Amino acid sequence: MKRLCIHTITTKPWSTEDCIRRYAEAGAGGITFWRYNLDGRDPAAVGKQAKDAGLDIVSLCRGGFFPAKTAASRQEAIDDNRRCIEQAHKLGAPLIVLVCGAVPGQSLEESRKQITDGLAAVLPDAEAAGVKLGIEPLHPMYADDRSAVNTMRQANDICDALGSPAQVGIAADVYHIWWDPELQHQIQFTAANDRLFAFHICDWKTPTTDLLNDRGLMGEGCIPIRQISDWVDATGFTGHREVEIFSNRYWSMDQGEWLGMIKDSYNELYGCV
Amino acid sequence: MKRLCIHTITTKPWSTEDCIRRYAEAGAGGITFWRYNLDGRDPAAVGKQAKDAGLDIVSLCRGGFFPAKTAASRQEAIDDNRRCIEQAHKLGAPLIVLVCGAVPGQSLEESRKQITDGLAAVLPDAEAAGVKLGIEPLHPMYADDRSAVNTMRQANDICDALGSPAQVGIAADVYHIWWDPELQHQIQFTAANDRLFAFHICDWKTPTTDLLNDRGLMGEGCIPIRQISDWVDATGFTGHREVEIFSNRYWSMDQGEWLGMIKDSYNELYGCV
Repeated sequence: MKRLCIHTITTKPWSTEDCIRRYAEAGAGGITFWRYNLDGRDPAAVGKQAKDAGLDIVSLCRGGFFPAKTAASRQEAIDDNRRCIEQAHKLGAPLIVLVCGAVPGQSLEESRKQITDGLAAVLPDAEAAGVKLGIEPLHPMYADDRSAVNTMRQANDICDALGSPAQVGIAADVYHIWWDPELQHQIQFTAANDRLFAFHICDWKTPTTDLLNDRGLMGEGCIPIRQISDWVDATGFTGHREVEIFSNRYWSMDQGEWLGMIKDSYNELYGCV
Repeated sequence: MKRLCIHTITTKPWSTEDCIRRYAEAGAGGITFWRYNLDGRDPAAVGKQAKDAGLDIVSLCRGGFFPAKTAASRQEAIDDNRRCIEQAHKLGAPLIVLVCGAVPGQSLEESRKQITDGLAAVLPDAEAAGVKLGIEPLHPMYADDRSAVNTMRQANDICDALGSPAQVGIAADVYHIWWDPELQHQIQFTAANDRLFAFHICDWKTPTTDLLNDRGLMGEGCIPIRQISDWVDATGFTGHREVEIFSNRYWSMDQGEWLGMIKDSYNELYGCV
């Protein structure tokens, strides 16, 4: 259970404090905070609270959204990512997960160029703060306005374009990449280049009724999660398995009951009864 | 306007006869029938009606759905595709568009193998009937239960695995493939191998509120349709541009008004005022 990490968005109705307390009580090993968790709070205090509860702070979600139609807006995004790096540093999060961004009507090539430029701009800040940046390839159904990076290959290409800095890598989420015929190879390649920074799990429901907020609990969908997870572990990855589930259905449940379901599903998947 | 073809599903509320009459009146050059159009009708009579109205019969949608968990179900799919080939032959459609199928919980690799086997089984029938089979790669968001073929590369791989028969090729729909970083290359490769059988257009709306039935009219989304269309034409493709739009929103409109919007959008896109 120590490799189980939960993203606070998975239990969105809970406060930051509730998430920390309840995840720790449930025996999870780690927590990934979302930035809204820090609203009106001192990141260092939140970080201390999590550590005192025995939780590893796995990452801070999310930076990114670099592309924009105007230079001024792109600069705003860079400034916001710098603030995010500072927050992560104070929080004690070693990693920021990046949803890289896309602009409807702007070519994906141009957006990827702007993402690369944005990363280059904030890289010195990340290095100075000792915070890593994890590019999360998003499913191609989010290529319109969320991410022009839709495969691990594209994320690796951006790492290459930046000159393979140790600070930049990839956050692999099964929801986004399970369909990719290159997946096993890309996981191996990513790890071999010391870029496999994070591993997120959930499931793909049939039918999926909402493009954003209808993700499934592990085991109720079609993603071969255990197979992908084994590919990840076979590279030597020993990091957390992060449960990140956006779901209107589950958010409307009693969140304690929902956390119990997550724990059961995780235990069934990994056989850690 | 002669390259404009409309899929009957685009005006789903209309009867087969209404589609033929109204598309011809609107000046479209072609029609793609869906199989439901043939329910209770003689395909040859429907085909004659369309030709008499001056419309090219571009294709019949849709065959495929080859993968299944049992051999008996896979045989049923093969039998159904044989019936579809016979219908297309009688209708006078030179092409069947294939939504290849997928089975939640079955690996995509296994589904692709079953698709290849299914195609091999019906290929002699297609050859005898003079009907081509167009594999339509579907967007990765349909990899759970609609198609294990999600990129043009995978469709080309299947053509290769079959030994590149002249009867099997690809139906390229911008909705499914616009995000693919290999797209231009794959269009060129497909055409160079005489496999570019069909070209479908519509748009991707932001936001998209339904995974199936919220497609956009050309121009209201983020797909660089004209650019992709130019890549297609640059290969020497002179076939129809087929408007295929599933949309609860547009289906609830007056369909005559909707057809006018399609025509205007097509004219604006291709400058054929």
